Amino acid sequence: MKRSVATAFAPASVGNVAIGFDILGFSVDALGDRVTVKRSSRPGVTITAITGVVENLPLEAAGNTAGRALLALQEAAAPDTGFEMTIHKGIPLGSGLGGSAASAVGAVVAANALLDRPLTLIDLLKFAMQGEAVASGSMHVDNIAPSLFGGLVLTVGIDQPRVKQIPVPRAVRAVIVHPHMVLGTREARAMLNKSVNMSDFVWQTANLAGFISGCYTDDLDLIRASFEDVIIEPQRHKLIPGFREVREAAMAAGALGCSISGAGPTMFAWSTVDAAEAVRSAMVDSFAARGTQTDHWVTGMEGRGARLVAD
Amino acid sequence: MKRSVATAFAPASVGNVAIGFDILGFSVDALGDRVTVKRSSRPGVTITAITGVVENLPLEAAGNTAGRALLALQEAAAPDTGFEMTIHKGIPLGSGLGGSAASAVGAVVAANALLDRPLTLIDLLKFAMQGEAVASGSMHVDNIAPSLFGGLVLTVGIDQPRVKQIPVPRAVRAVIVHPHMVLGTREARAMLNKSVNMSDFVWQTANLAGFISGCYTDDLDLIRASFEDVIIEPQRHKLIPGFREVREAAMAAGALGCSISGAGPTMFAWSTVDAAEAVRSAMVDSFAARGTQTDHWVTGMEGRGARLVAD
Repeated sequence: MKRSVATAFAPASVGNVAIGFDILGFSVDALGDRVTVKRSSRPGVTITAITGVVENLPLEAAGNTAGRALLALQEAAAPDTGFEMTIHKGIPLGSGLGGSAASAVGAVVAANALLDRPLTLIDLLKFAMQGEAVASGSMHVDNIAPSLFGGLVLTVGIDQPRVKQIPVPRAVRAVIVHPHMVLGTREARAMLNKSVNMSDFVWQTANLAGFISGCYTDDLDLIRASFEDVIIEPQRHKLIPGFREVREAAMAAGALGCSISGAGPTMFAWSTVDAAEAVRSAMVDSFAARGTQTDHWVTGMEGRGARLVAD
Repeated sequence: MKRSVATAFAPASVGNVAIGFDILGFSVDALGDRVTVKRSSRPGVTITAITGVVENLPLEAAGNTAGRALLALQEAAAPDTGFEMTIHKGIPLGSGLGGSAASAVGAVVAANALLDRPLTLIDLLKFAMQGEAVASGSMHVDNIAPSLFGGLVLTVGIDQPRVKQIPVPRAVRAVIVHPHMVLGTREARAMLNKSVNMSDFVWQTANLAGFISGCYTDDLDLIRASFEDVIIEPQRHKLIPGFREVREAAMAAGALGCSISGAGPTMFAWSTVDAAEAVRSAMVDSFAARGTQTDHWVTGMEGRGARLVAD
């Protein structure tokens, strides 16, 4: 093995992106998790510490997203090697910013640097998916893939996932507003209807196709017209007190669109660069008007995914 | 008025394109309808003759797709002008090749040439949609838009439709095989479930997004992986005796994908140019093996929409 310790930073991410439920997400480089993995004489996977903004995560590897991802990698690629891991959480728990995905991605990216034969990103994606399943109760990739690859990322397929980085028009920024409340992904998923009516299905697919076409062709008008989730958001927005007002404030300030980040409660908007600060202020002020504190970021979507950093 | 008579050719089209139910279609320039419109001293819209491959279509304007489309245009843009129209059908009735859409498109494109102030293509689209609704019982645009604009065309929205021409990789051809049987669009629509289950929804949206991304980036591998309709085709394929065998034959011959054109019974495949003739033969032979005669075409999708031709 070429080295005995490596640390990876894995960015936060916005899943769903309004019209791409379970298939589309973008990375948010302003925050993320750092995971350090060491070779260990002790077999299996040992989590030695979890620090940062989240407390009380399980230290038992099989019940921890990063631990489970690393176990999957170990089983497939390094069965005779023991790993020790420390996790520094930069992404708040239950924020809808892909914290569990980032920890899983950080773990496999760091461990990959310790292997004699590094794995492909698609292999790492599959292992990280097994970690994410621990947290969310289902195999979805809309946070894993952007945290790993960076940028706006589409994933097609689960057993044989194919990843596509979709270009975001250069003039577009993402505004991320995290209200200080906690939602669980499992609960947010459990509240969804098990079916979609046909007319909503057609409407949503038109929006998805329009959004993606708009991204490929720098067509901000089409992105704006397509930026509406008619299926998931109407079911979930009740979990976020103030959702409608915040969304309206963002749109009035010039946003291209505004919706829920993943399962929430974080909200996000897309905006042109010149309107981004106004959109941020509008959203933050709208939450503040009802006494809700927030953290908030304005970020580009250039596409830096998880990477090795200094230990 | 600048001229008193004009004739338009409007191409056939493949609606749905497997993964874009009601929103995506591509034009098929190898066949189409020709519509001649003349100014008339008689008010309203008069259909004087319908010739070609279809007989027994209604001559009463309000009950005819082309007549209804022309009435809509007349009401909005030329209320004091009478129109006389002849329709030459090149697209078989109930073939799933967008015959009713082509007649409606031909009518409005021809009439537009007679107006002092020509309308936009989006205006013409809206009038043609009103004609299409007579035939299918619903306002959908996945045949209208490609027949009017040409190429592979996405339409987002109904009241304020936005049209996007999506580039098809240059190496790709469409194979169209029309078995000699007739299906009605109304019936094919009526048999569809009113809802979609959530996992099929996610799968289909991933395929749609992958297909469109593959078109924008010349990614034939992704187009092939995404070219599967998990929602409509499983419900409708029973209407086409031999569907499974024909599809399997197309795929075995190297097709990127194969599905139902619109409501059927025409089937289509996409293929690279070098495999296109083999795919055509495989599909034709598979239908022939069960005694079903076919018409068939191999065509590019360069994007010629409806246009004026010699009267």
